[in-house]
Amino acid sequence: MKIEIIKSTKKDFKDILKLINELAKFEKLEPPNSKACNRLKRDAFGRKPKFRVLLAKTNDEAVGYAIYFFTYSSFLARETLYLEDIFISENYRKLGIGKLLFNELISIAKKNKCGRMEWCVLDWNTNAIKFYEKLEAKHLREWLYYRISF
Amino acid sequence: MKIEIIKSTKKDFKDILKLINELAKFEKLEPPNSKACNRLKRDAFGRKPKFRVLLAKTNDEAVGYAIYFFTYSSFLARETLYLEDIFISENYRKLGIGKLLFNELISIAKKNKCGRMEWCVLDWNTNAIKFYEKLEAKHLREWLYYRISF
Repeated sequence: MKIEIIKSTKKDFKDILKLINELAKFEKLEPPNSKACNRLKRDAFGRKPKFRVLLAKTNDEAVGYAIYFFTYSSFLARETLYLEDIFISENYRKLGIGKLLFNELISIAKKNKCGRMEWCVLDWNTNAIKFYEKLEAKHLREWLYYRISF
Repeated sequence: MKIEIIKSTKKDFKDILKLINELAKFEKLEPPNSKACNRLKRDAFGRKPKFRVLLAKTNDEAVGYAIYFFTYSSFLARETLYLEDIFISENYRKLGIGKLLFNELISIAKKNKCGRMEWCVLDWNTNAIKFYEKLEAKHLREWLYYRISF
């Protein structure tokens, strides 16, 4: 099976939405409603994109995606590539597609002179955690994550 | 004591650096070296700022700061205000300056239609944690934070 990793454009939006909905189901979270979908399209492909989307495709079918953007480390004084979502369709797991997406993300981070790449994972997602440990990613145990919702 | 919260500009850079160094000492982390300081100045006040800095000032002295930028929640399809650093000089704690900075950050987040405000705190920093709990911020226990450093 030939897998291609591409930087998505507006015409891929339907594929992206399909995958985001699959991820929401998998993470037991609410998927974006129709207003949110309109904002997503504008924020991904408008004049000032707020995030980027990589797609994994095989035979022209989108089977995985990664959403990322750049944050900043004040101590390194360098950007960080932050991976907001990564997801592979259920029937396409264990085929190395996640690794291909990660390799592309790492390459983008290095091209942009980032000091780090960071992301979060839900604690019950043991398959993902195993995958990250194999990549020699470091779990930042000493940092607690806080949120205020409006 | 009159405290003023201002959006910093290039002329405040020396003050910002002084406070970043105080924070590094407090967090037992390496402060930015001279090359990193040059990048910080460019990334804060260049043509495309990568982050913003609020300063707390009293009698023209900078006594606290907050560094923030905008990330993105794909599920909300809204920006998040991410607070990278917040710090108050040791002699100026317990005076409500942190609260003033937080109020300003929340107001900026709302003005920008953010769905959330997020940040991390070191697990031994009990004073900060108490402060965040009083703000009714939620600790996202189920999310584990991962990093690859280059």
